[in-house]
Amino acid sequence: MTKEYVMKKVFALDKRYQLNDGAGSDAVHSTPNYAYAVCIIKTNSNIEGIGLAFTLGKGNDLVCKAIEHLSSHIEGKEINEMMRSFGSTYKKMADDPSYRWLGPHKGIIHLALAAIVNACYDLWAKSKGQPLWKLLIDLPSEELINTLDFSYIEDVLTRPEALQILNNANKEKAARKKILETGYPGYDTSVGWFNYEDEKIASNIKDTMDSGFTAMKLKVGGLDYKRDIRRAEMIRKIAGDNATIMFDANQQWNLPQAISMCESLKMLNPYWIEEPLHPDDVYGHVELAKEVDIKLALGEHVPNKVLFKNFLQSGSITFNQVDVVRVGGISEFILISLMSKKFNIPVVPHVGDMGQIHQHLVLFNHIALDHPALFLEYIPHLSSYFKNPACIENGHYRTPEFPGIGSDLLTY
Amino acid sequence: MTKEYVMKKVFALDKRYQLNDGAGSDAVHSTPNYAYAVCIIKTNSNIEGIGLAFTLGKGNDLVCKAIEHLSSHIEGKEINEMMRSFGSTYKKMADDPSYRWLGPHKGIIHLALAAIVNACYDLWAKSKGQPLWKLLIDLPSEELINTLDFSYIEDVLTRPEALQILNNANKEKAARKKILETGYPGYDTSVGWFNYEDEKIASNIKDTMDSGFTAMKLKVGGLDYKRDIRRAEMIRKIAGDNATIMFDANQQWNLPQAISMCESLKMLNPYWIEEPLHPDDVYGHVELAKEVDIKLALGEHVPNKVLFKNFLQSGSITFNQVDVVRVGGISEFILISLMSKKFNIPVVPHVGDMGQIHQHLVLFNHIALDHPALFLEYIPHLSSYFKNPACIENGHYRTPEFPGIGSDLLTY
Repeated sequence: MTKEYVMKKVFALDKRYQLNDGAGSDAVHSTPNYAYAVCIIKTNSNIEGIGLAFTLGKGNDLVCKAIEHLSSHIEGKEINEMMRSFGSTYKKMADDPSYRWLGPHKGIIHLALAAIVNACYDLWAKSKGQPLWKLLIDLPSEELINTLDFSYIEDVLTRPEALQILNNANKEKAARKKILETGYPGYDTSVGWFNYEDEKIASNIKDTMDSGFTAMKLKVGGLDYKRDIRRAEMIRKIAGDNATIMFDANQQWNLPQAISMCESLKMLNPYWIEEPLHPDDVYGHVELAKEVDIKLALGEHVPNKVLFKNFLQSGSITFNQVDVVRVGGISEFILISLMSKKFNIPVVPHVGDMGQIHQHLVLFNHIALDHPALFLEYIPHLSSYFKNPACIENGHYRTPEFPGIGSDLLTY
Repeated sequence: MTKEYVMKKVFALDKRYQLNDGAGSDAVHSTPNYAYAVCIIKTNSNIEGIGLAFTLGKGNDLVCKAIEHLSSHIEGKEINEMMRSFGSTYKKMADDPSYRWLGPHKGIIHLALAAIVNACYDLWAKSKGQPLWKLLIDLPSEELINTLDFSYIEDVLTRPEALQILNNANKEKAARKKILETGYPGYDTSVGWFNYEDEKIASNIKDTMDSGFTAMKLKVGGLDYKRDIRRAEMIRKIAGDNATIMFDANQQWNLPQAISMCESLKMLNPYWIEEPLHPDDVYGHVELAKEVDIKLALGEHVPNKVLFKNFLQSGSITFNQVDVVRVGGISEFILISLMSKKFNIPVVPHVGDMGQIHQHLVLFNHIALDHPALFLEYIPHLSSYFKNPACIENGHYRTPEFPGIGSDLLTY
């Protein structure tokens, strides 16, 4: 008989980490700290589930409070039993009648849901002694589908269609497992934070290329657009024509500004322009995509499957940057990845989790859903705080082998 | 010299009110209480600003906490000085770099902003000894525009365009002031709460028509669609062909369900169908509007000007139900009303405030923006808790004459 893991107690911890010297800065978030609202599930055994939601420090306490408000939905349940029909548990939490008013499915209450859901998957994977990617790619399609909540997206993705996507992808699955040996490619975001001086960026570019990265990002979106252009030209010049370069405006522009800046920046052949507009503005992105021939990436601030559905329907985005510590955790991430597959839009997550959870999810997306293996964002600033920090070798994430989703912290 | 009102201390109170016997219930929010996160601004004088955000009880404490987090932006300022360029103060609060991560512009942190902004307008109106509607309609257009933050909507409404709308509406303003005497028409939502028995609804219909209302609403969206149809037929039969009837699904349906139910319900000639789908689903509403020839109303859960911009651009909605205790308070409400005017979509607010603030805002919208005076939702359940409860006579809101925005509560 399988051992039972009953969720005895669910609580939250507010963990904040100081960033220094301009690290993490962008055009909108000028002096961030990084913080996790950590959901901890204690069981009748010595294993525990650890889930994260990501914030920039201030207000992290509110997400923690919200985790404790929502925790009653899972307390007392046995993890493997619950995960057999997790889609319905997910829906109960997401649609808790009074908390739902505070969204629905967005903001602090949804961040709290992310932390809880992620902790459930962590406990589930640990209960099987498996890393998340292995648990997910070995799971029979029907069982995977049962962990998802299709409500409100049935007009573009039904349960049978999702099953079909999984079954189609199953055919060449074995061949795609090769990536487990080579590791999943990464790209370096920490080259060009907004508040870094030009000199620091120049030396960062050389360092990151020496360490094996061939793709990197620069923060733009300044009020001084000439500074943006100068630095963008610099990164292209130093990194060379073969390097993959992305520019990230972090929602700073309105539509007329975005059109003008994208026109200028496209001369530098960026792989994408990221978050050019307000993240709710579907029609704005449609208009921008019509006006300028450039690939758009967004998703780090898109809160839920419904808005992702709209962005996918709009045809405006080329890259889907869903973040598992922003949407309702791994369950909603998988659903959004399935929808994205239907629309042939690759998933290139934003890593509020510093890649700890996403390194599993991109392997799953590639192997089990047949998403292309592009690259995963890498941000090193919190690696000393994780028990098993993501390991980068020659610009690639080494496949993680420890049980769970990878979000155990060293100290609580 | 004008007296100065310095905002000495800003804090929040968590006020919750029990609802009984099915009042307030809908298909999604099954057993609500009503609650206000109340922002209180103490000044150097004996007047204070009182602002509200509305929730269904649970989680109201989190909105209160968020109010206290954001309050530092206004503490220490003088109210009339601040309101001269309130658009920039609004933007600073809405874009506070780290709190912004928790939205942006949605969820708990935006509800907190609503309460603070509303308290500022309350203090401003009280400092002039005027009811909000009078302050707003007498304000020179330029000064009104300075209280607004146009960022992210410049592609559909610029500052000069907004000014033009105000100036155009100025021409027949005097004639539209007649409504101050007749009072603004109301409609009765409390006839048909979801959990009310058929008998109670039948007697409510008669009572409300006896008291002078000619327009009323029924909650639908049940899993048992036959119950919805039966009750919809009942309300039409009892109220008669001349009554104005609305059906409200409170986001319960997905697109296929909404198409089918709207097809059935339209035989009963409803004035609108309210919240048929998830409130983020712009393309879903476009599809529904294409499939079924019926007027759609929504907005009570649309969090900000950017999503309202998208809904207006989409052409899918006929009525804009923006709620001043959901979006970022009176400033964002006015901006959304201006956008809505540009698209010729009437504003028929949802009244999380029980109409206390909106009774002022619909007068402003009609007199100063030349929006049609349709009707304002009326919900009586909290009237005994307000110091100056909205006064309904023969189905009309009597024009409020007390200074402020109308959200003073009897006890704190």
